[in-house]
Amino acid sequence: MSTIAAANLRVDGDRLWETIMETAEIGGTPKGGICRLTLTDLDRQVRHWFADACVAAGCTVTVDEVGNMFARRPGKDPSLPPIAMGSHLDTQPTGGKYDGVIGVLAGLEVLRTLNDSGYETNAPLEVVNWTNEEGSRFAPAMLASGVFAGVFPPSYAYERTDRDGKNFLDELERIGFRGEKKAGDHKFGAFFELHIEQGPILEAEQKTIGIVTGVQGMRWYEVTVTGTDSHAGSTPMRLRRDALLGASRMVEAVHRIGWAHAPDAVATVGLIESRPNSRNVIPGEVFFTIDMRHPDDAVLARMEEDLDRALPEIAAALQLDHKVERVWDSPAVKFDAACIDAVRQAAAAENAPAREIVSGAGHDAAYIARVAPTSMIFVPCEKGLSHNELEKAEPEHVIAGANVLLRAVLQMDAQHARE
Amino acid sequence: MSTIAAANLRVDGDRLWETIMETAEIGGTPKGGICRLTLTDLDRQVRHWFADACVAAGCTVTVDEVGNMFARRPGKDPSLPPIAMGSHLDTQPTGGKYDGVIGVLAGLEVLRTLNDSGYETNAPLEVVNWTNEEGSRFAPAMLASGVFAGVFPPSYAYERTDRDGKNFLDELERIGFRGEKKAGDHKFGAFFELHIEQGPILEAEQKTIGIVTGVQGMRWYEVTVTGTDSHAGSTPMRLRRDALLGASRMVEAVHRIGWAHAPDAVATVGLIESRPNSRNVIPGEVFFTIDMRHPDDAVLARMEEDLDRALPEIAAALQLDHKVERVWDSPAVKFDAACIDAVRQAAAAENAPAREIVSGAGHDAAYIARVAPTSMIFVPCEKGLSHNELEKAEPEHVIAGANVLLRAVLQMDAQHARE
Repeated sequence: MSTIAAANLRVDGDRLWETIMETAEIGGTPKGGICRLTLTDLDRQVRHWFADACVAAGCTVTVDEVGNMFARRPGKDPSLPPIAMGSHLDTQPTGGKYDGVIGVLAGLEVLRTLNDSGYETNAPLEVVNWTNEEGSRFAPAMLASGVFAGVFPPSYAYERTDRDGKNFLDELERIGFRGEKKAGDHKFGAFFELHIEQGPILEAEQKTIGIVTGVQGMRWYEVTVTGTDSHAGSTPMRLRRDALLGASRMVEAVHRIGWAHAPDAVATVGLIESRPNSRNVIPGEVFFTIDMRHPDDAVLARMEEDLDRALPEIAAALQLDHKVERVWDSPAVKFDAACIDAVRQAAAAENAPAREIVSGAGHDAAYIARVAPTSMIFVPCEKGLSHNELEKAEPEHVIAGANVLLRAVLQMDAQHARE
Repeated sequence: MSTIAAANLRVDGDRLWETIMETAEIGGTPKGGICRLTLTDLDRQVRHWFADACVAAGCTVTVDEVGNMFARRPGKDPSLPPIAMGSHLDTQPTGGKYDGVIGVLAGLEVLRTLNDSGYETNAPLEVVNWTNEEGSRFAPAMLASGVFAGVFPPSYAYERTDRDGKNFLDELERIGFRGEKKAGDHKFGAFFELHIEQGPILEAEQKTIGIVTGVQGMRWYEVTVTGTDSHAGSTPMRLRRDALLGASRMVEAVHRIGWAHAPDAVATVGLIESRPNSRNVIPGEVFFTIDMRHPDDAVLARMEEDLDRALPEIAAALQLDHKVERVWDSPAVKFDAACIDAVRQAAAAENAPAREIVSGAGHDAAYIARVAPTSMIFVPCEKGLSHNELEKAEPEHVIAGANVLLRAVLQMDAQHARE
């Protein structure tokens, strides 16, 4: 009976969309995006909004030691591990309205939909808001889902500092979201994350749903190039040790490495800081970051070899010193066959044009896959534009994604009945 | 008789050095530098110290409407225009002990030396402390010598504001140095400025004295490169518009332009800012500055033509937009032949290893040269390091420079006797 009911269930699309637009005002920017960095006052505000909404939906909300929030809706059998849905409510400095947000709010909408129909699941359901997915304030990204999955100890997260020297723990306590609960202390029966693709593929092929089979491997590096800061007017070209010139050649080299392993490889310098950064002083020190990704860890390793060859040559040619540190290594991830199949069947049942896809971006689901059967659902975003205030997703796509999430969750739950 | 006396005159090196070290305590920093921004309480303190010292040396001290200070020692013929010496007592936020300071205090030492020997010049002598040479609090640099030379009206100087929004006039009045005297109302017979080289050339060639024949032309530009900020993980290389890649190629191009016109040309990108400057976002906008200099304005113009060719090609190849604005143009300055010759002969008479040199940096003398016969005397500074608390000059070099200043001034004065 519940399966029949399940087949007829649909989320309330208008309610979901209004909820997305309502929370988008917390940290909303003039350009229509969101600037809601993790562990800021705006993050505190959206966290309180989320907790209140979940309690209103009949959930118990708990917070773990790194600020991850879990909203639990009971099932028939409390002994079953919860089936979880979620993503993150923090954003990039110039973030859009959808990245992360729709994964949390669609989870909330699923619970509201089940409440409306009085549908009772076998297993408890949980909606999760993971802390600091973006990593733009505290590197690395997906920090707190990483702690949950045992990738990092909590102490590692606590010690991360932002560019102002403020650390994660102080900021977590400041906003009042350091919970009692030990991270990762409870297991999920399954985890589903709905997310915008953040790439151009689904839109280009006019697909509504991406059945995500895995996440590409990623490595982050920090590079410091050191020369000599001296007067721009009175230091002849031949006597210069210009750290910015060296960094510029390294940016070019990183770009070449990306192309050398295209089309699947990407390589990016996203952040750069020059010191003393004065118009008439030759830069004496430049700090920059490198982000390299590929679906195949072996290729990613070759890209790192290319980098290890290129940078010393550039530095030596300009008599510069340099330091390269790999600060993050996230191996390629393959998602759970049963979860992938649940998404595939849900998309089919929705008659949604779908294709399998490997995520180019990192997601909390990539870490959760280490400790629970996991998959993701992608929906298109305009021109693949993301981490951008102009990020745009169509309501019908987001709503279709939420319905696929609902069906996938109920199908996983139905298996318990069959077991 | 006075020329014989002149040949025997030497400054009191110990007294000069002690004076430099005494004033260095006003705004002295733990690292051994000076932070004495113009029109601050510390500037007021050093200005009172200077006025008192000059009065004690028998001078009349006057202040003009933009705070320039003139300490006058009478000569035999009051009708002759004064022969002036000087520089500035203000410093960079992380300034050293010598930049500007030695030019003023060596002038004071010259007067003290003449007093000790009872030497009477034909023309009056003046020691000048120019206001706001550094420009680090109120841009542009060399502001008040520019007013004296008629480059800027006093009102322009008055309206300059610092980062706290305080304006030049209010601060000038606050420290009590807005004088009655109209800027530029009296002419100089000649002007000599002793200064550290702020470059590595004299040290590299083991020269004690730089005979400064002029100041190179300088042009400043501001460039904004615009692409599309998008996700570093899910945006294929072929679909990127990476503003930082474009800026990096432009940094390389600026460097090439400097080399193309070497050894006299310099071209520098000193300041760069990337937006949104996040590790996993492709930079959508990069702002940077260009500083190009050459002793010959015609060559500088060709360097600008090279720039106007290079940047659009780079932007077009990456489908980036860009904007270039020339924000400052300071023509090359050729100093007065007689003044240069006076310095050359003075260096020879001192048996000081010397070479002709074109100043790479801007100085008050560059503006004064527009209204009076002018030259400069350079002494080496360690590793060419300047605008830095570690700026270092050897006592024997500074003292030799002061003796060259003394001889050059007396030689110019002697010409009056011959006339």
